[in-house]
Amino acid sequence: MTADATFDVVGIGNAIVDVIARAEDDFLVAHGLHKGGMTLIDETKSSALYEAMGSATIMSGGSAANTMAGLASLGGRAAFIGKVRDDDAGHAFRHDIQAAGVHFPTPPATEGATTARCLVLVTPDGERTMSTYLGACVALGPEDVDKDLIEKARIFYFEGYLWDPPRAKEAFRLAAKAARSGGRKIALTLSDSFCVDRYRDEFLDLIRSGMVDILFANESELHALYQTADFDTAIKALSREKTLAFVTRSADGCAIVNHGAVQTAPAAPIDKLVDTTGAGDLFAAGVLFGLARDLPLKRCAAIGAIAAAEVIQHYGARPETALSDLIAQAPA
Amino acid sequence: MTADATFDVVGIGNAIVDVIARAEDDFLVAHGLHKGGMTLIDETKSSALYEAMGSATIMSGGSAANTMAGLASLGGRAAFIGKVRDDDAGHAFRHDIQAAGVHFPTPPATEGATTARCLVLVTPDGERTMSTYLGACVALGPEDVDKDLIEKARIFYFEGYLWDPPRAKEAFRLAAKAARSGGRKIALTLSDSFCVDRYRDEFLDLIRSGMVDILFANESELHALYQTADFDTAIKALSREKTLAFVTRSADGCAIVNHGAVQTAPAAPIDKLVDTTGAGDLFAAGVLFGLARDLPLKRCAAIGAIAAAEVIQHYGARPETALSDLIAQAPA
Repeated sequence: MTADATFDVVGIGNAIVDVIARAEDDFLVAHGLHKGGMTLIDETKSSALYEAMGSATIMSGGSAANTMAGLASLGGRAAFIGKVRDDDAGHAFRHDIQAAGVHFPTPPATEGATTARCLVLVTPDGERTMSTYLGACVALGPEDVDKDLIEKARIFYFEGYLWDPPRAKEAFRLAAKAARSGGRKIALTLSDSFCVDRYRDEFLDLIRSGMVDILFANESELHALYQTADFDTAIKALSREKTLAFVTRSADGCAIVNHGAVQTAPAAPIDKLVDTTGAGDLFAAGVLFGLARDLPLKRCAAIGAIAAAEVIQHYGARPETALSDLIAQAPA
Repeated sequence: MTADATFDVVGIGNAIVDVIARAEDDFLVAHGLHKGGMTLIDETKSSALYEAMGSATIMSGGSAANTMAGLASLGGRAAFIGKVRDDDAGHAFRHDIQAAGVHFPTPPATEGATTARCLVLVTPDGERTMSTYLGACVALGPEDVDKDLIEKARIFYFEGYLWDPPRAKEAFRLAAKAARSGGRKIALTLSDSFCVDRYRDEFLDLIRSGMVDILFANESELHALYQTADFDTAIKALSREKTLAFVTRSADGCAIVNHGAVQTAPAAPIDKLVDTTGAGDLFAAGVLFGLARDLPLKRCAAIGAIAAAEVIQHYGARPETALSDLIAQAPA
């Protein structure tokens, strides 16, 4: 038995402001960027790339933060832990996540690096390529974790990107311990295939030590995790893990692997793909919303698909429409 | 005979960063905002309104600046004169207008108020309601006008909003003198019906003293100019002015009043109205592009209509698509 939950999900991740511009494929090549991936860059490189890129739109981002904003838009109760600086971008990040209805208790850093920014380049095919300067995210540490908050949320959600800033892992460990002591579920998103390449052994250790009840991955992240280019081989390997996993395959929907049992669910239809930024984040939001309400797995995936479909039809990684309305209109 | 033009148009106006959020009509009422209008507010009110509004997207704006960005997107040669502060928002404004291909020689203010911001609230019907803190715009003065630049542009374009900051009018006068000495055309947009209410006599004086070769207005601005609620009465009054005027009527297209001769042109079709911000600015961009190339007036209006149609189908006041491509696809 667990106590009543104050929040559906509390997420922890990098608090980032996205700077979004359109770019041609040639531009990515000229600047040595891996299309579709996320590259960590320093402040100097970030400034130089910004100067070279086109007119930009600035919107709050961050993978787990986007997921929490999506969860709130669905009508869920969400909290977020992440570090900004007390600068204009940090103020905008705080404004936006709070305006989305997410509880955000983490105090800003008052010295050191500026608020993190992710330069998002969207190519004509709607694919996004990200270059992130982590900035103030490196200041996130265990002192930012409110154990009571974690204990009182049904699900504790963390992003693989959290392994990049040096002390964030310690914050994760403390939070995970609190989640377990509260009898709560722990969910992980693998974030990015390059991120999996950086921390493969640690992520597998987490999964195999029973620290991950719910796992989110897309096809390329799963391939990276099991070091295979074959989807069936990867799913077979995943089937041996003691976890519930959702593997997204863009327009081909997703595979749900529940402690070895595999089923599939379709993607939601869209009119026009504009920008894939936030697709995985919003899919996770929908699934977590369903899981926190004990809905059937296929229904969880359907809600995730609807949330992802909304966000890829416009620029930016957070919903423009109240997702609760979209879900209400969709057949159960 | 005039010398060859280096630029098609040089525009002067308030350099503003837009902070855009969705809002219900109730929110406008609760905050005493005039729907569809632009209200000037101070920094304290701006901060309070920002805190109260929803998750926001930050994009460069400013009426004449949007028009110059649109002109560049059409393939025209554009320059902009306007004042930002040397802060993050000012840096973003400079980045975006230069990335759009617009020459922007005005140095930033190094002290005083921050870069201007316009809080844009978009209601479900796509209408935008604006609250502007003029900030660094009040520092614009005659010292920012490069007479040589103005003399070398086919058209000198200024916005009615320029009458709000105290010294900008002096900058206008100097620039207008340079335009005349270069044998160039001068174009004015009336900006906003409330702006017309503030400066009606001065705008009429400008028009009647022969300082305005080309005039842009929408229906409500024209009604405000001639203090009538009847469109035909307003058009009749306009027909007596010695100017070429384009009066936009949203989905009903526009009236072209050329020194008394009236003709009409249709709006361009759209799939879905998302946000009217920038509609008038982009219409002006298309018309100015055509006029600078000596195209027939109806063709100028058609290009304006296509540019306006692009910008009202997404959030933000600057084009997301290369307008030159849209024009190339459209029947001549």
